[in-house]
Amino acid sequence: MIKIAICQLRTETDRAETSAKAKAMIYEAASKGADFVVLPEMYNTPYSREYFKRFADMGHADAVAQLSAWAKELKIYIVGGSVPERDKDGKIFNTCFIFDREGKEIARHRKIHLFDVELPGLRVRESATFSPGKDITVFETEYGTMGCAVCFDLRFPELFRAMQQRGAKLVFLPAQFSVATGPKYWEPMLKARAFDYQYYVVGAGAARYHGFHYESYGHSAVIDPTGACLCMAGEDEEILYADVDLEYVDEYRAQLPTSKLMRTDVYRLAE
Amino acid sequence: MIKIAICQLRTETDRAETSAKAKAMIYEAASKGADFVVLPEMYNTPYSREYFKRFADMGHADAVAQLSAWAKELKIYIVGGSVPERDKDGKIFNTCFIFDREGKEIARHRKIHLFDVELPGLRVRESATFSPGKDITVFETEYGTMGCAVCFDLRFPELFRAMQQRGAKLVFLPAQFSVATGPKYWEPMLKARAFDYQYYVVGAGAARYHGFHYESYGHSAVIDPTGACLCMAGEDEEILYADVDLEYVDEYRAQLPTSKLMRTDVYRLAE
Repeated sequence: MIKIAICQLRTETDRAETSAKAKAMIYEAASKGADFVVLPEMYNTPYSREYFKRFADMGHADAVAQLSAWAKELKIYIVGGSVPERDKDGKIFNTCFIFDREGKEIARHRKIHLFDVELPGLRVRESATFSPGKDITVFETEYGTMGCAVCFDLRFPELFRAMQQRGAKLVFLPAQFSVATGPKYWEPMLKARAFDYQYYVVGAGAARYHGFHYESYGHSAVIDPTGACLCMAGEDEEILYADVDLEYVDEYRAQLPTSKLMRTDVYRLAE
Repeated sequence: MIKIAICQLRTETDRAETSAKAKAMIYEAASKGADFVVLPEMYNTPYSREYFKRFADMGHADAVAQLSAWAKELKIYIVGGSVPERDKDGKIFNTCFIFDREGKEIARHRKIHLFDVELPGLRVRESATFSPGKDITVFETEYGTMGCAVCFDLRFPELFRAMQQRGAKLVFLPAQFSVATGPKYWEPMLKARAFDYQYYVVGAGAARYHGFHYESYGHSAVIDPTGACLCMAGEDEEILYADVDLEYVDEYRAQLPTSKLMRTDVYRLAE
């Protein structure tokens, strides 16, 4: 059994305040026996173009060093939501840093699909700020292979097939779905990825920021490989816990062997 | 607008009885203005290995000719659920024949993925009876391009991506999900294919046959391109109607252009 804890925090305009909250929640989760602690997308930044740029200018090194230090001190894995990562060429990525129990960075997922939409009530153009990642992210842990994607990546099934093909038995998805799209899509889409690829999906959202121009939907959730929701948060700050068993992934895949029954002679797969 | 009618009939052990029911429902649907009338998988055969073989031995020609004649007489499209189709080599396929308003066969989908599972409470091995199809099915209509898949095909996202890539704006899915898997998977999976590929999905189930060793789940449904359920049947016999607008597919795809935002430089697509 693996104990997962999702810290569904609200991201504040004051970075030090958000960081202090994240620290308190991570320590609390560790004290409850969490093996993996997961933060939401842009965990130390309000979801807004203005703040993305300002926080990117402040550099991501401190925040990332802090996550590593907490992981090492508490002997836990930390899936660090995401932060604005500025590379040496000045490009900014929406990046999830992942640390093992020794505080070592074992993976880094740069959001591949940027959120550029014009829905009724929601107009966002992430590509005005961010550059897109180009790597599919899976990583090894003491429990088996896991994957990671960020928010809008969720809408692209091929990415999730590719993680399955590379051995993932659990996929982390730090996100900030909004109240405009969350009620309709968040849970059904997390479930779809879980039942289609028969692994756990851990969706980590941020708490709702009432009155801020982008209001996050919250509703962090852990979905099992059959698509059943093991637990789901509300819209406010909380730590959500779930125990998951990666051996069940193998068991379920043996009962309903969709991966073996795929017709790669008829269509090709994402790889 | 296109009026779709799903004839959710119960498949009887007496083929003539089922055929008479199908005819009555199809005529009724046509009298209500249906443009497309859809039947469930194995519409003229109880869902059972014994009957599949027996009905295949009786030949599929009569049933298929009948569908064609009804389509022509009523000037409607008929998506003929499926029948056991025996080819010239004696192989049996689970095949959906599709007719236009002149009674012309415009497509034929042979179920690609055979249902071979050992779930708790449900053990089925379709491959003991059927040979698998090997062709992805899309076809042209006066309204635009449509696709077709049968029942267990639903669990394979790549097939649905391939239909989208070939232009489908609506996909028909004749099926006989069972009461063992239907409550958990039927609706979420129809919705997943609809919101992922942004087209209508028309799932046509058979009515429940209480006491028969395979009890169908019913719950025929029409899902719109956002994943919203436009209408859903219960478990008993009924004709389910929905009006769909294929122009809305284009409109929705423009708002949320996931097809354009795919990263085919990162993963490859089914084609």
